[in-house]
Amino acid sequence: MAVTQKQVAELAKVSQAAVSLALSPEGRKTLSPQTVDAVEAAARALGYRANRAAQALKSGRTLTIGCVVPDLTNPFYPSLIRGVREVVEAHDYDIVIYDSEGSPDRERRFIDWAQAGRVDGVIGAFFYLRVPDFLPLIDGGISISRIEISKKVGGALPIDNIYVDNHAASIAAADFLLDKGYESLGIVSGPGEPSAVRVRGFEGRAKSRGAKIETAMAKSLNEEGGFAAACELIGGSDRPRAIFAVNDYMAIGALHALHSNGVRVPDEVAVIGFDDIPVASLAYPPLTTVSQPQAEIGRRAAQCLLSRLDGGEDGPGTAHELAYRIVERSST
Amino acid sequence: MAVTQKQVAELAKVSQAAVSLALSPEGRKTLSPQTVDAVEAAARALGYRANRAAQALKSGRTLTIGCVVPDLTNPFYPSLIRGVREVVEAHDYDIVIYDSEGSPDRERRFIDWAQAGRVDGVIGAFFYLRVPDFLPLIDGGISISRIEISKKVGGALPIDNIYVDNHAASIAAADFLLDKGYESLGIVSGPGEPSAVRVRGFEGRAKSRGAKIETAMAKSLNEEGGFAAACELIGGSDRPRAIFAVNDYMAIGALHALHSNGVRVPDEVAVIGFDDIPVASLAYPPLTTVSQPQAEIGRRAAQCLLSRLDGGEDGPGTAHELAYRIVERSST
Repeated sequence: MAVTQKQVAELAKVSQAAVSLALSPEGRKTLSPQTVDAVEAAARALGYRANRAAQALKSGRTLTIGCVVPDLTNPFYPSLIRGVREVVEAHDYDIVIYDSEGSPDRERRFIDWAQAGRVDGVIGAFFYLRVPDFLPLIDGGISISRIEISKKVGGALPIDNIYVDNHAASIAAADFLLDKGYESLGIVSGPGEPSAVRVRGFEGRAKSRGAKIETAMAKSLNEEGGFAAACELIGGSDRPRAIFAVNDYMAIGALHALHSNGVRVPDEVAVIGFDDIPVASLAYPPLTTVSQPQAEIGRRAAQCLLSRLDGGEDGPGTAHELAYRIVERSST
Repeated sequence: MAVTQKQVAELAKVSQAAVSLALSPEGRKTLSPQTVDAVEAAARALGYRANRAAQALKSGRTLTIGCVVPDLTNPFYPSLIRGVREVVEAHDYDIVIYDSEGSPDRERRFIDWAQAGRVDGVIGAFFYLRVPDFLPLIDGGISISRIEISKKVGGALPIDNIYVDNHAASIAAADFLLDKGYESLGIVSGPGEPSAVRVRGFEGRAKSRGAKIETAMAKSLNEEGGFAAACELIGGSDRPRAIFAVNDYMAIGALHALHSNGVRVPDEVAVIGFDDIPVASLAYPPLTTVSQPQAEIGRRAAQCLLSRLDGGEDGPGTAHELAYRIVERSST
């Protein structure tokens, strides 16, 4: 029934051992490119599919990367994970995803889960775990790339950090609105450290430039939260002229709150979001936002991980800053 | 540093063996409720956290459930997974998620991955795999609940099916629009079997009731796809009076296409979606749609799985139909 390595070897006119090597990420490096090409052509022609599970068992590796994200319902994270996938798939890794739902307890459960030799590497956006929490993984030989929100430097531990400077990006958002002449500002915020960092950056800059500013805190970081917080901001006697939402998902909820209350965007109230999720450009009106390169963050995190997993890199942690940019659309 | 089972045993005044049993899902059943209560109270008081990984290794179980979905960027699936989580978490299972991205090859890769003893059970929405493809998992003692889109009956294999009758639901969508007096209809569709089933139901009914109908096929099942397909429908000389999009994500893209072309919704063109994802009620205007109970689908799939994993159920597959309903908002 199934095509065997022996048949592939016969068609490729190489030894069975060469086939076995050619079909493993490690073994491949020991062969000539011609041999690898011949084996791959024969495998394709015969429809051969490696028994990856057996390979993994034999090598003591799982060929699996765990991605931990705080909120799968926010399209930011699926976009980031697709970036990871683009890079690791070519190296024959599978990705499994763990949704911590922004809970400290679930973040810790993930560490428990992962340390049982279930993944070779971890790419994660953790809200609560600190460096010592990762020691069980490091001790177990599991490589780690962290998605961060603030400036980092490389550390002694082999944990790589990939980040966009959220503080600076939020300052840029404040400057953008103030430079456009909007002088009374509202913030739609929610729980968690990323929101807090963005609020601090935006609010600090707005105050230092003498703007009037008010913040509404939502219970959740999604559209429902953005809707509720925006209603609070526009319900008062002193409606802000522009709103900064700490993520696009909340900004879209804020847009809806404005529509529902008959407030014209941007003529009466302007809105700027944060992230540039795919739907931002399709919002009504299309959303001005602080863009973070989701897929690029995922790709970079994956490249760092692969250089440790397959590339022999075993030095201390590195830090990689990626650029944000303001994408101006019609909501401001 | 860490609290040990010995300390828990001392406080609970039971043997260490009883603590060990009380803290495992299987062992618990062999103890008296009083003993379990005493151990749990002591564990809480001391802040004891079981080494779940070690437990799992010892019992030969992974305490992990794999969820396979075809598109994590569509909020339908994260909502469904949260329903799974609500049920399985109380039973101390972790969930890992695998995004097949609607690719037959990735669906098969998941089977390869899962059969290496990495999960105790699988909950999945598979577009391409057929029953025989699951035999390696069944042989490996891995339980399976499938999320389906059409009427199913229980089968000989121990695979449970949870479904909403998408064909009937699409007929209901056609009746809803036609009963409102919209007689020329457009369909925004895309690749894959669920779309095809929905188109067949809607189109069949519309034709049998004498409506004019036109279909635009998008390349992708997301907002970009919905935008492009809707532009195609309204670009012709004979614009439809109402549009049925095969999912809400595409319907929201269609709404944006209408806004961008200065077409008023619903006065000039009405729109109905399918799924009732959380954002549907926050679309502009709020989206009329065929609601599928995402969290309930997830919960039911999880309950079926748990009755096989922990409840001793080992009979043939069962089938569970959940109800759809039309949720009327302002887009029709």
